[in-house]
Amino acid sequence: MSFKSKIRTIQWIDNISRMVDQTKIPYEYVTIDISTGDEMYNAIKTMIVRGAPAIGIAGAHGVVLYAQELQKLNLPRNEFITKLIEKSKYIRTSRPTAVNLMWAVDRQIELITNSCSDTCGIVEELKQNAIKMENNDIAINKKIGDYGAEVVPEGATILTHCNAGALATAGYGTALGVVRSAFAKDNTIQVFSDETRPRQQGSRLTTFELKMDGIPVTMITDGMCSYFMKKSMIDMVVVGADRIAANGDTANKIGTYTVAIAAKYHNIPFYIAAPLSTIDRTINTGDKIPIEERSCDEVTYINGKPVCAEGINVINPAFDITPHELITGIITETGILKPDYKTSIKNAFDGIRV
Amino acid sequence: MSFKSKIRTIQWIDNISRMVDQTKIPYEYVTIDISTGDEMYNAIKTMIVRGAPAIGIAGAHGVVLYAQELQKLNLPRNEFITKLIEKSKYIRTSRPTAVNLMWAVDRQIELITNSCSDTCGIVEELKQNAIKMENNDIAINKKIGDYGAEVVPEGATILTHCNAGALATAGYGTALGVVRSAFAKDNTIQVFSDETRPRQQGSRLTTFELKMDGIPVTMITDGMCSYFMKKSMIDMVVVGADRIAANGDTANKIGTYTVAIAAKYHNIPFYIAAPLSTIDRTINTGDKIPIEERSCDEVTYINGKPVCAEGINVINPAFDITPHELITGIITETGILKPDYKTSIKNAFDGIRV
Repeated sequence: MSFKSKIRTIQWIDNISRMVDQTKIPYEYVTIDISTGDEMYNAIKTMIVRGAPAIGIAGAHGVVLYAQELQKLNLPRNEFITKLIEKSKYIRTSRPTAVNLMWAVDRQIELITNSCSDTCGIVEELKQNAIKMENNDIAINKKIGDYGAEVVPEGATILTHCNAGALATAGYGTALGVVRSAFAKDNTIQVFSDETRPRQQGSRLTTFELKMDGIPVTMITDGMCSYFMKKSMIDMVVVGADRIAANGDTANKIGTYTVAIAAKYHNIPFYIAAPLSTIDRTINTGDKIPIEERSCDEVTYINGKPVCAEGINVINPAFDITPHELITGIITETGILKPDYKTSIKNAFDGIRV
Repeated sequence: MSFKSKIRTIQWIDNISRMVDQTKIPYEYVTIDISTGDEMYNAIKTMIVRGAPAIGIAGAHGVVLYAQELQKLNLPRNEFITKLIEKSKYIRTSRPTAVNLMWAVDRQIELITNSCSDTCGIVEELKQNAIKMENNDIAINKKIGDYGAEVVPEGATILTHCNAGALATAGYGTALGVVRSAFAKDNTIQVFSDETRPRQQGSRLTTFELKMDGIPVTMITDGMCSYFMKKSMIDMVVVGADRIAANGDTANKIGTYTVAIAAKYHNIPFYIAAPLSTIDRTINTGDKIPIEERSCDEVTYINGKPVCAEGINVINPAFDITPHELITGIITETGILKPDYKTSIKNAFDGIRV
């Protein structure tokens, strides 16, 4: 049973990509129209759009935008294709950790490479492919939500970290997709949202989108999770993922690993919710996943004002790796993968239902 | 070997209490003169002065301030004493968790009860007692620092949470006293400071006071600790305490328990640094320690601006309890107490050296 969400994060409309400007939330809920490939590159890099599945869609849109621009130059078909693949590879580098970006851009590159159409036809095919990805993303999230809802206890309090919600996808969400599907069945469940410093996606985005959809949410700071776990106020943890290695090790927003350790210590189930496209089978273990380091200002400034002494050292890794042994299950669109993940991931890709 | 710190947090001068206004750091380093008991009550409550040992001193000063005020009323000695004890008990309630406040006020109440002097003499004795407590506090911190320095490995990176520094005491610090004494012996050590949301005492105070004293410090957000532990970039954790139960369970700033769990998971030593006056032997276990809940605004607003959706739920416990089994040692002025803490704490109070 799926929940009707009010949020549509990113959508192709005619010849532009319309997205919710996430840097403005929770102060404003406004959309921004992206009409060139370079604008899309910057929108991803500056996190106007963020969340692994959403930046996948954004990357696919970016390829369409570049294709539209190149089409106007009336280049010979060969040159059009060479230049477009070059631009696609550029947009693929706008952020390094979430594999969905690479996955979605690679689907577009495949289409470009395999198409028999003229340039005009390729542009149209890329557009239709991007729209299909959006719709697929929402459909996949609903499946993830429905599988996940099956393991949510009655009246549960679900802790989440960062935002793996409608705002991190085309719509509906992965971790918050599980919340939405569970809430549709049982409106006594509730969410605890970690603030998720430095960028506060938990307090800024997760509280905002759950409030908008009428799902009860309590905000806590990142250090508080163990306090509430000890008090038996958290029944399960569900978070998203930016990249999952073939053994189940999972890259997600910095701080996730700390929550996973706390959950293990308190014997609380810890789930990852993510589409199969988040799984990077070319990488055996989590320590091979590249971790983006972002600007120190994200740590030292909040709302434009410094929060620490000047001139001190800061390190700002944007993600961490939760090792597979801390993960109770990986909720995907084909079911909940269980340890050992090497086998269950392989089976999922081989089409063997779990 | 002790380190020369530039910071003196709270000091009795003539007939006022002069303290660093900690709500202004890191933007300004200014002192404020507190001249009435009610002002002191508010200074403690609003955290102009904070840190368990510092609010102990502040409480003792508060009693002197009330004594000075009552003295001006020329009350009969009996009435003076009754009213002063009443006021002392009031200031004792300005914050609930740190036992040092109760401990220091109780020492003043003892003095009032046992003194044979006239009202004028009592005021003078209370003043001298408060000054003695200040000096004792610094002397005790240096002893804590020196004992702690013995267990700091060469070139170590020490993670700390919140501020148990010069700014949390009369001067020198407990956890940061260990850092100062270790740095005096080995200037290749360095500190990682958790931001410590919600009030950011780590980023606002710890980075500030270490920078002021020339000790290298790197600020991280609270969720990052496990990431750096996994990378073997943290050699030990040292934090302060607000109250320690007879079995070693320790109340300290919210988030400490999470760090302790992460340290255990990575086999990293986790130390508490605190004077014996922080130990409350009337309480057997940590679950009996009262935990202050503070205003939700501390979580939802930073620098006067909201950081989450309006109207969501928030819970703001100011402290958590780290169970004794996660604590490697409790560094006190008489040595480092080791498990089992029930015995080692009893021995420390019985004057049996560890």
